Amino acid sequence: MTALGVGLIGTGFMGKCHALAWNAVAPTFGDVARPRLAHLADATEGLAAAQAGAFGFARASGDWRALAADPDVDVVSVTAPNPFHAEMAVAALEAGKHVWCEKPMATSLADARRMRDAARASGRVAMVGYNYIQNPAIRHFAGLLRAGAIGRLTHVRVEMDEDFMADPAAPWGHKDSAESGHGALDDFAVHPLSLLTVLTGLPARVLCDQARPYADRPTADGGRRAVETYEIASVLFRLEDGVSGVLLANRAAWGRKGRIQIQAFGSDGAIVYDQERLNELQLFSRSDPAPEQGFRTILTGGAHPPYRTFVPAPGHSLGFNDLKVIECRELLRRIAGEPALGLDFEAGYRIEAAVEAMARSHRDGSWVDVAAVAGA
Amino acid sequence: MTALGVGLIGTGFMGKCHALAWNAVAPTFGDVARPRLAHLADATEGLAAAQAGAFGFARASGDWRALAADPDVDVVSVTAPNPFHAEMAVAALEAGKHVWCEKPMATSLADARRMRDAARASGRVAMVGYNYIQNPAIRHFAGLLRAGAIGRLTHVRVEMDEDFMADPAAPWGHKDSAESGHGALDDFAVHPLSLLTVLTGLPARVLCDQARPYADRPTADGGRRAVETYEIASVLFRLEDGVSGVLLANRAAWGRKGRIQIQAFGSDGAIVYDQERLNELQLFSRSDPAPEQGFRTILTGGAHPPYRTFVPAPGHSLGFNDLKVIECRELLRRIAGEPALGLDFEAGYRIEAAVEAMARSHRDGSWVDVAAVAGA
Amino acid sequence: MTALGVGLIGTGFMGKCHALAWNAVAPTFGDVARPRLAHLADATEGLAAAQAGAFGFARASGDWRALAADPDVDVVSVTAPNPFHAEMAVAALEAGKHVWCEKPMATSLADARRMRDAARASGRVAMVGYNYIQNPAIRHFAGLLRAGAIGRLTHVRVEMDEDFMADPAAPWGHKDSAESGHGALDDFAVHPLSLLTVLTGLPARVLCDQARPYADRPTADGGRRAVETYEIASVLFRLEDGVSGVLLANRAAWGRKGRIQIQAFGSDGAIVYDQERLNELQLFSRSDPAPEQGFRTILTGGAHPPYRTFVPAPGHSLGFNDLKVIECRELLRRIAGEPALGLDFEAGYRIEAAVEAMARSHRDGSWVDVAAVAGA
Amino acid sequence: MTALGVGLIGTGFMGKCHALAWNAVAPTFGDVARPRLAHLADATEGLAAAQAGAFGFARASGDWRALAADPDVDVVSVTAPNPFHAEMAVAALEAGKHVWCEKPMATSLADARRMRDAARASGRVAMVGYNYIQNPAIRHFAGLLRAGAIGRLTHVRVEMDEDFMADPAAPWGHKDSAESGHGALDDFAVHPLSLLTVLTGLPARVLCDQARPYADRPTADGGRRAVETYEIASVLFRLEDGVSGVLLANRAAWGRKGRIQIQAFGSDGAIVYDQERLNELQLFSRSDPAPEQGFRTILTGGAHPPYRTFVPAPGHSLGFNDLKVIECRELLRRIAGEPALGLDFEAGYRIEAAVEAMARSHRDGSWVDVAAVAGA
Repeated sequence: MTALGVGLIGTGFMGKCHALAWNAVAPTFGDVARPRLAHLADATEGLAAAQAGAFGFARASGDWRALAADPDVDVVSVTAPNPFHAEMAVAALEAGKHVWCEKPMATSLADARRMRDAARASGRVAMVGYNYIQNPAIRHFAGLLRAGAIGRLTHVRVEMDEDFMADPAAPWGHKDSAESGHGALDDFAVHPLSLLTVLTGLPARVLCDQARPYADRPTADGGRRAVETYEIASVLFRLEDGVSGVLLANRAAWGRKGRIQIQAFGSDGAIVYDQERLNELQLFSRSDPAPEQGFRTILTGGAHPPYRTFVPAPGHSLGFNDLKVIECRELLRRIAGEPALGLDFEAGYRIEAAVEAMARSHRDGSWVDVAAVAGA
Repeated sequence: MTALGVGLIGTGFMGKCHALAWNAVAPTFGDVARPRLAHLADATEGLAAAQAGAFGFARASGDWRALAADPDVDVVSVTAPNPFHAEMAVAALEAGKHVWCEKPMATSLADARRMRDAARASGRVAMVGYNYIQNPAIRHFAGLLRAGAIGRLTHVRVEMDEDFMADPAAPWGHKDSAESGHGALDDFAVHPLSLLTVLTGLPARVLCDQARPYADRPTADGGRRAVETYEIASVLFRLEDGVSGVLLANRAAWGRKGRIQIQAFGSDGAIVYDQERLNELQLFSRSDPAPEQGFRTILTGGAHPPYRTFVPAPGHSLGFNDLKVIECRELLRRIAGEPALGLDFEAGYRIEAAVEAMARSHRDGSWVDVAAVAGA
Repeated sequence: MTALGVGLIGTGFMGKCHALAWNAVAPTFGDVARPRLAHLADATEGLAAAQAGAFGFARASGDWRALAADPDVDVVSVTAPNPFHAEMAVAALEAGKHVWCEKPMATSLADARRMRDAARASGRVAMVGYNYIQNPAIRHFAGLLRAGAIGRLTHVRVEMDEDFMADPAAPWGHKDSAESGHGALDDFAVHPLSLLTVLTGLPARVLCDQARPYADRPTADGGRRAVETYEIASVLFRLEDGVSGVLLANRAAWGRKGRIQIQAFGSDGAIVYDQERLNELQLFSRSDPAPEQGFRTILTGGAHPPYRTFVPAPGHSLGFNDLKVIECRELLRRIAGEPALGLDFEAGYRIEAAVEAMARSHRDGSWVDVAAVAGA
Repeated sequence: MTALGVGLIGTGFMGKCHALAWNAVAPTFGDVARPRLAHLADATEGLAAAQAGAFGFARASGDWRALAADPDVDVVSVTAPNPFHAEMAVAALEAGKHVWCEKPMATSLADARRMRDAARASGRVAMVGYNYIQNPAIRHFAGLLRAGAIGRLTHVRVEMDEDFMADPAAPWGHKDSAESGHGALDDFAVHPLSLLTVLTGLPARVLCDQARPYADRPTADGGRRAVETYEIASVLFRLEDGVSGVLLANRAAWGRKGRIQIQAFGSDGAIVYDQERLNELQLFSRSDPAPEQGFRTILTGGAHPPYRTFVPAPGHSLGFNDLKVIECRELLRRIAGEPALGLDFEAGYRIEAAVEAMARSHRDGSWVDVAAVAGA
């Protein structure tokens, strides 16, 4: 492989996370060429220049279009605020770049479709940054399901809970506006949906209830303003083959910091995972002798690729940022035409369609078919 | 208090549990008179006599009607199979006895109404055996909610999972027949509903999906027979005041043995409980200093009545049978006209109405109002 | 079996626990005759009479010697304060009674030897109330070790921690006096020693350090008095066959309520147990496939006798008092000449000798041989 | 700060870990200049060149002395096998370089003293790579102790267990030879000792027992060879002020992968940490209201610097490699003359002296004073 030229748009939470991944991917994995950190763009030239130094990028721009046009750039990390994803990703694809776009893919299903179509037209690699699916524990989870370790799947539950919207005294903000989306469903529930995509397949039909724990929030002028989004979304669903499932999301759940609990039940066992302990996997197998049956806590290690690439010793823990490094390497492999794990704009669009179906089900109080919403 | 004469109908799982409670209630609690174990009835005289000796009952009958008519009997434990509850409880009440009926109250809403009406007419104490609400950890949970320890309730989730129906190779049996009820919803989900009753109040509106992981099961003659019940029930609900909740039940959940996980989220914190560790309660409070916030694992002890009545030392664990002893004492207090914790036939009927509402919601695929089902 | 006449001396913490066991043993286990609760003795006649009513005993005395002489009494529960154990147990044995004596056996090694010798001379059954060894989880632990489930034992650690002496502001009391014994070592560490007895065998050689976290405590007169005992005892040991182990006891360990953690490592796996979750056992086996290896959490149930005798459903939890019921049944079996699990006065004496060896090692700062202390 | 020139000797487990840290330190922390990756040395020129490319180093050598002499190099990472640490570190210091040496510092106390003396003479920064002390959870642990959150320390226990030597069928290797050191005590127990250094101070007196679970191991020629080291070390100790403690290490502990459990008890509470869940800290405080007391599980987040520098969202987990990045930044700060957390060669020497004292105590079966072993 030859070195790719990297462009990075955005230097916030996920921008920095991408920067770290671009720096770490070659030292971590011996099998990819060290990328050239070519161009970094942020809101202003000053901001961009300051971060380019720390992040190791050669050039800095206050205008992301300059980056998209830069011939030194082969692949663009899109980590700017969500409403900009569509415009930036489409422009980059049209300029012939590969795109690595942060989740959520877009803030409307129409935008997501536009992005998917641009990717199709370009023939370039276009991936969405669902890093949780790269966790060795999740990969092993998926492998166990595929191998029939718990028999045939009979039921699945996913809960995603954090507490960043839990404080009723927090001032009214962008995330409370209808403009930001439905609430828990979109920028939040897409994570569980990405996990379902690789574990069980996406829901085919959904039945949803959204709730608003706080009717209004204080404003800067001493008044109160109605909250327009829903912090809580509870969804019953059926998979393509009829298997029942539940997806629960709550971004006002005090005490939960990064919880994504997945419980998969099968005809021969069960698997449980919790993202707050992302290096652990729980497996119950009825094939164990009866008196010794129990959920076993598996600590990830050398038996769970690509854990060992980070730390040779088992049980020493990967972190959140490491998952992005794995994702980065999968992106590079995909660009190089090799088999790779990742969710592209096609898969990302289907996730956005599932979200839209949930919102419609909530509105109508009845089952909604995801494929019908996704359309052709 | 003077000693009450006790009659016990049934000596199976819960019959033995009642017998143990009747033997232990006075030694455990100094404040109730030791009851007279007057009469035990089982299917045959021989069976009854054998158990009367071990359980310490003075008389034994093969006919429960003899027991119901026995003037030495003041209170009747009804622990016979569920379909008999209504007939036995009504007869006992009509004979002027107090009744302590095992859950589920009845196998049809009509029966439950008949029992409730008989209790109303008799003026006697008529309780349903929802022993989990007696757990000191659950009592403390309820007390914390009442005291506002987590502020205003914003969301609640209850999961009840066991694996006694998880084996797909198990032969078709009574629990697979429509005659036995809906499946997970009735004899199983009533436990979570009893807990919700004392913690948050019952659901007011429900949206339900039931699922059948195994379409059929083997029969004795080497064939297969269609399963008519649902092992899985998933329910979205709203409380009277609009707070959203979720109730999930799965009796085919490999690895779960007695799991009832309750997660209550409020505006100031959260409480989590899991029945498989029934001596523990998890509390998160945002009033803790930020760097020291976290779910604390509270082990029940002297600060959680009536734990100390069983063991003076904290953290030494009560068991399942102990909860029945507490329930028995509450029954005795209620009979004596003292304040007592317990769910009577009025509360039991409302729980059965909630179950019926869920079944109708599943059928219709839309929200169903519980009060409308319960009727007058 | 014919019914035994039971005498109970003492009605405190453990006296009540014995009373509950005597009431529950026959209803719980169908295979033992319901004992006659013949005679209860406490410090005064009034106290004894009050408790005899609640506990179901026929007669009450203010003088335990009357009970020891009562021909209706076949077996005597000795639950009076520790310093009285020796005198009472010896008298009861000399009167031809079987004896069930609470732990610790005695407050001096000389007393323990006297009790052992009396038991030998009497030919009666004389047991010490080490109820933790009766836990189905512990029995399974022992069974796994015997069956070689973790191969050959390579190392064992036991920690016993509670916090009833953790408050530095608590007033000076009996447990702070040298008269009460060494401190954590005797009335406390005997529990882990009872567990080691049934799991791995007792330590053969010990190296001990005792520590005193609080030099003095407040007295009623506003002064302070030096603490004479040690809340903390830390012991390195070797088993008969040279396997190394550690026993740590701390009765001033804030937050620990009933913790007895046992970690047993072998050549093929490991087993971990924690008494604060007494219905669970952790097993790691290297024979599991590498990617699925992990500690499995086994919830006790029907596969772990005699759990099912209490509750047919697995994972529904036994409690502290249930363990005493099992112990009571084992006592009845032993009296009936049947195989039974329990530690008699011979085993109890060896435990007391191990405690004495630890105290001497602390004094001398060097290894002490337990057999040498125990003598002939 | 101006950019430092970095030299890296070694590219194994810890060499790669250093390389990742050198790449990530500037993107992660905005407050340090991006270092120049100047020179990488490994056993052969080919090996060095291959890794220099992936790791981003400008120059590569097959001879570490060339690196030590390179004027472009300001600071040298020493990650070669343990026996080489002394020679390399001393040479680098004598060449005027700062040194970042992996643990264990040296394979003999004499070597460690030589390194300490070279550091003293050079006036350069010389640090040992004890990365676990950099964990935000451990820093918070230390801060809580300093702030008196659990009152006055009364007792501390540390257990370090892994299973890389647990397989009795594994062939005899270098770690089984006396040449490699004592066994668990040196390359392994130094981690707990580094943690004690920052939490409670090092042990002042020690009483130690080492054990050998497997007497011999198979050799390539089909024979067996005696194991000369000890997989297990159990140590009782006293801190300078008399507080008692226990340090237990077992590198043959099946099922333990990276366990370092620390339990600190104080007069007002307790703190528990387990490295296998390195993003969690358990705190018990008696100042909580009695019915709500319990160990709270604190998930690290923004309140625990420098967690937020890696991930803004709490509970999203740092990994093993992230701790090295923190250590790297502390090294840079120390070189820049700013306050920094880290253990230098003085502290490292004292840790090696404690290890030596433990080995002598095992030999003699009696207490050994650490200061006496450390000497002047």
